Amino acid sequence: MGIVLKNILALLPENDSDVIRETDIYIEGDRIVSIGKRPEVFSEDKVIDGKDRLAIPGLVNCHTHSYMSFMRNVADDLSFMDWLFGTIDPIEQQMTDEDTYWGACLAIIEMMKSGTTCFNDMQMNIHQTTRAVKESGMRAVISRGLVGSGNDEAGQMRLKQAYEERDAAADCDRLTFMLGPHAPYTCDDGFMRIVSEEAKKNNMRIHVHLSESESEIEQIREKYHCTPIEMAEKNGLFDVPAVAAHCVQITEDDMDILRRRNVSVVTNPASNMKLGNGFAPVPEMLKKGINVCIGTDGAASNNSLNLFHEMSLLALIHKGVKRTPQCISAGEVIRIATINGAKALGLEKEIGSLEEGKKADIAILNLNTASLTPRNNLIAGLSYSANGSEVETVIIDGKITMEDRKILTMDEELVYKKIDEIIVRMGLDKKEY
Amino acid sequence: MGIVLKNILALLPENDSDVIRETDIYIEGDRIVSIGKRPEVFSEDKVIDGKDRLAIPGLVNCHTHSYMSFMRNVADDLSFMDWLFGTIDPIEQQMTDEDTYWGACLAIIEMMKSGTTCFNDMQMNIHQTTRAVKESGMRAVISRGLVGSGNDEAGQMRLKQAYEERDAAADCDRLTFMLGPHAPYTCDDGFMRIVSEEAKKNNMRIHVHLSESESEIEQIREKYHCTPIEMAEKNGLFDVPAVAAHCVQITEDDMDILRRRNVSVVTNPASNMKLGNGFAPVPEMLKKGINVCIGTDGAASNNSLNLFHEMSLLALIHKGVKRTPQCISAGEVIRIATINGAKALGLEKEIGSLEEGKKADIAILNLNTASLTPRNNLIAGLSYSANGSEVETVIIDGKITMEDRKILTMDEELVYKKIDEIIVRMGLDKKEY
Repeated sequence: MGIVLKNILALLPENDSDVIRETDIYIEGDRIVSIGKRPEVFSEDKVIDGKDRLAIPGLVNCHTHSYMSFMRNVADDLSFMDWLFGTIDPIEQQMTDEDTYWGACLAIIEMMKSGTTCFNDMQMNIHQTTRAVKESGMRAVISRGLVGSGNDEAGQMRLKQAYEERDAAADCDRLTFMLGPHAPYTCDDGFMRIVSEEAKKNNMRIHVHLSESESEIEQIREKYHCTPIEMAEKNGLFDVPAVAAHCVQITEDDMDILRRRNVSVVTNPASNMKLGNGFAPVPEMLKKGINVCIGTDGAASNNSLNLFHEMSLLALIHKGVKRTPQCISAGEVIRIATINGAKALGLEKEIGSLEEGKKADIAILNLNTASLTPRNNLIAGLSYSANGSEVETVIIDGKITMEDRKILTMDEELVYKKIDEIIVRMGLDKKEY
Repeated sequence: MGIVLKNILALLPENDSDVIRETDIYIEGDRIVSIGKRPEVFSEDKVIDGKDRLAIPGLVNCHTHSYMSFMRNVADDLSFMDWLFGTIDPIEQQMTDEDTYWGACLAIIEMMKSGTTCFNDMQMNIHQTTRAVKESGMRAVISRGLVGSGNDEAGQMRLKQAYEERDAAADCDRLTFMLGPHAPYTCDDGFMRIVSEEAKKNNMRIHVHLSESESEIEQIREKYHCTPIEMAEKNGLFDVPAVAAHCVQITEDDMDILRRRNVSVVTNPASNMKLGNGFAPVPEMLKKGINVCIGTDGAASNNSLNLFHEMSLLALIHKGVKRTPQCISAGEVIRIATINGAKALGLEKEIGSLEEGKKADIAILNLNTASLTPRNNLIAGLSYSANGSEVETVIIDGKITMEDRKILTMDEELVYKKIDEIIVRMGLDKKEY
């Protein structure tokens, strides 16, 4: 199928930064085949009029737990460990396969509606998430969250599951997989070594939570006499390309390790604030040359999967913390949410920017909106002013998955209904608000 | 005109907090005449089906500069004084009456679309803003920004203008007026005293910027050997009910003054971060019993006038700063954006909550959205998850001003076009992004 975005403003890469320029974008099959110039052989099945529209590369949400969307707003204003072990864990014990599926569907709808076209997910039931990804037309990178100690049976069983589930999804090339050792406080050193050996052997990347809360730092310091990042390095997690979520409470030495070992760091501003964990040193990491990307974390700790919201937080909070308006720019924020994310996932040759030969993963925004008027500086507009609802059309892998804000691949109202049923079944609905 | 919101979930006040409950809301003329029970005499001209909808009191934006909307994204990543005196001031020198009008129109559209039904504005051309308010059906409180020293002619002239402009708008009861001594670094002590005497004489409230930046604190310390809040108190600004915007850099003693003198404080989280001014001590002020409300500030320092965005910032940032998830609750955030704002403006008997006898200023949200699913805890949903685009219908003063997200009182596309023309005329459009 050939799609042309005609006379459209587009966010295009130029000399390690981005420019916005009016152009035509030609899509054939799953790829952008030309920008600016009509290909010699091209049959257009669909023309999208670019008047008052801005095309950007689909945003990349580098850390989330899609199934958790049904837990949105169930546990607020709690400390991290109380939140995780006191509230979220018990809910997860009651969760069925179908709950995971509907949770993933809700997550995908929310992300697609706010311009995200690829997400990096960690969870416990790959089958159900890959089912939602396949049906919705979304792109995703999936890790089965692995917890365990040494060579215990449970840890081995989870690893086995991770492979089985990966193999069962081999028919969809919008899906790739990582190994997901959960965190230093849920995987001991022996298990970390097993997982990193597996990753090397199978040529897989690692997705891990590191240095999220103060209590994690204390626990690891007490047990291993080092930081979580040092513990991860010692146990081989950085011997393959790794994506480390959070990295809030980190030292100068930690940053040097992350840089030297080419670890990508996913910052999750809302989640880190909501759970009282603080602010990751993003400006410092950028200065060191660490590849910083961005994630929403799960909806239970955010409570939104809207990357535009997350981008505005990123653009604002560090200026407040450092009392320096120059410490991060609107342009850097956009790259963090696009090409840096693609790099973290090993997909930088395929997604993360609008370029000829790359996959056609595109969000189209309506500029006839108050939040994006005037159009004098749309890069600042994307980072500071947009709330995500300006996204009107979404194309993933060359297919239109959302048009006029209607998701074409899923039944939105059915998903909302199913989610509310889960909440009622689990007794999580407040009878009186 | 009689309007019924039938079987609708509504955010209702109960014992100094809020609950959400399904009910019917009856509107007659400009007021809510009954909640829950059909009035004996009532003819309904319009029934709004409340299925899957949530009615909340219209949000109150307690500090903005509406005309500045046309300057959205013109000056990013600059320090406060460079931003104000280096970029914004020179643009203001070129501004015509029409520019102010279209800027105010854009601001009103953005606010209405995100559920704000009343704003507290400080600016230099009341006529044009009141014109936009009258036409749009919005509610506003307006202050002519006053700068001056001692009894100088310019200061006197601005005061005279403020009164003339106020009197010219006496025909619209959606408009009220305050006196707006701009800030301690633009009004000297003599002029502050003149303005506070005028306020007392004319029974008017005061709207002032206080303790926004570190450089302001230093300037005032050097000149008057006290803090900006002490300077304002000494010069009588708190002898009438006052609204102080910002209060970012304040001492324990400052907070005691604010509490003792019943000053309402408007926190502006995005603006304070964007300009590198930091974080106001909101949890501390709430603990002291200070009436804290919220504002967006102008679009040039935010760069959005969406109070849902601002509420989510308020709900998140202090948890990050204090590393304490319990320091501010979702319920407190909602009250800060509604009834506390009404109190600050002296309008708490008229607006700020859905109550019988109050003005019908209501925002209706569509709950069939990913961001508000599940519906287990909609108070958290409003503070953390909503992005403002869920607002579907807006009623102000008993009139429907927005329906199905279409503004009924203004020509949106014309406003966007006029704003882009201003930007081009002033040479503020980036030719190459």
